[in-house]
Amino acid sequence: MPLDYQFEDLSEDQLAHETALYGGLAQSIRELAAASLRTTVAEDLVRETQREVEALTARLSAEMIPNENFGVRISSEGSIRGHGNAVVGLRNPVAPPLDIDHDATGARSSFHLNGLYEGPPGKVHGGVIALILDQIFGEAAAAAGSPGMTGTLTLRYGKATDLGDCSAQARVDRVEGVKTFVTGEFLNAAGEITVEAQGIFIMPRWARAAIAEHQQKMTRFE
Amino acid sequence: MPLDYQFEDLSEDQLAHETALYGGLAQSIRELAAASLRTTVAEDLVRETQREVEALTARLSAEMIPNENFGVRISSEGSIRGHGNAVVGLRNPVAPPLDIDHDATGARSSFHLNGLYEGPPGKVHGGVIALILDQIFGEAAAAAGSPGMTGTLTLRYGKATDLGDCSAQARVDRVEGVKTFVTGEFLNAAGEITVEAQGIFIMPRWARAAIAEHQQKMTRFE
Repeated sequence: MPLDYQFEDLSEDQLAHETALYGGLAQSIRELAAASLRTTVAEDLVRETQREVEALTARLSAEMIPNENFGVRISSEGSIRGHGNAVVGLRNPVAPPLDIDHDATGARSSFHLNGLYEGPPGKVHGGVIALILDQIFGEAAAAAGSPGMTGTLTLRYGKATDLGDCSAQARVDRVEGVKTFVTGEFLNAAGEITVEAQGIFIMPRWARAAIAEHQQKMTRFE
Repeated sequence: MPLDYQFEDLSEDQLAHETALYGGLAQSIRELAAASLRTTVAEDLVRETQREVEALTARLSAEMIPNENFGVRISSEGSIRGHGNAVVGLRNPVAPPLDIDHDATGARSSFHLNGLYEGPPGKVHGGVIALILDQIFGEAAAAAGSPGMTGTLTLRYGKATDLGDCSAQARVDRVEGVKTFVTGEFLNAAGEITVEAQGIFIMPRWARAAIAEHQQKMTRFE
């Protein structure tokens, strides 16, 4: 069951244009979501806002891609556009979204988590930490030349992480055949490690064939 | 460093009223987010929508709680209101949100995951699965009478999970002192197990004291 990566005839300029257009809309919706969580305006205003949001949804829904998901698209010049991704998707209002740096040794990111990512009061949800580490681990494996799907993920929570500025990092320990072993940490604003994790990422057989076929095109992974 | 649970003088009726009011707004923002991911309307309409979203954010931001997060509040009649929670928070547009059933033996939930929760094309993000299992595991531990923070979480991904209808379940295996051992699974629409997980939830010392103090009040955990 190969995944449905779609190849698009889209130039880098067009890609940048679409990123700004839809990324701007998604960012505005993120800010609306954060404000909705904290607002104490009059109830009539809350109801009126809901009606206006529904009107905007109707407007955007007038023309849509047929699938319920955005998918992952690869431009004619090789950029991968995972703009729907739940962690890094610029077009996805649910994503913080993370900007992840990676090289052959690993991946890392610094980011801000507001109340939308809360678990215990004032703390980052433990599952949000797992979500973010899974994405960074996967990107570390890909950047090391061995992209894969999550096989196992083990997390050890040492202390609660305050909401606010956070960071995460991952290193590829070794590659054994189709398995890539990744280790990493989640850190709070003070730079203290709050969670340690290990993961094994596995490249499915069909993916190896697909990647070999498009080797020239997949020069950048985002 | 005890967590900041806030006790509120709020009746069950007021709680239900606020849940409907803010839950309705959050649901409308979830639908706007999903539409923004898929829309192909004219670029001018996208830009106009962004401007209108920004105006709604400004309106809601005119009066807000001072904290960046919503927190967890406990009503005068004992209900816990974790409406900001990243997984179950009715007031949180980032949350799917899950409705979790629990009893003394465990916890379970059925839910729909749309493109906002995508990782690989058409598949649920592996980290979203971890996020959801962490929440359900924590609720299973709490329902068994031993609430705690995530200590360790280990996930084994057997196969990719299609976006769409999904479910998850958790059972408490045993309690040893402050540690609660939980096991569970994530399932796809066909009812096949796609991910198996184990977790240890740990009750911090200060939480034991706080829970003893408010034992009568914390009869329901959401």
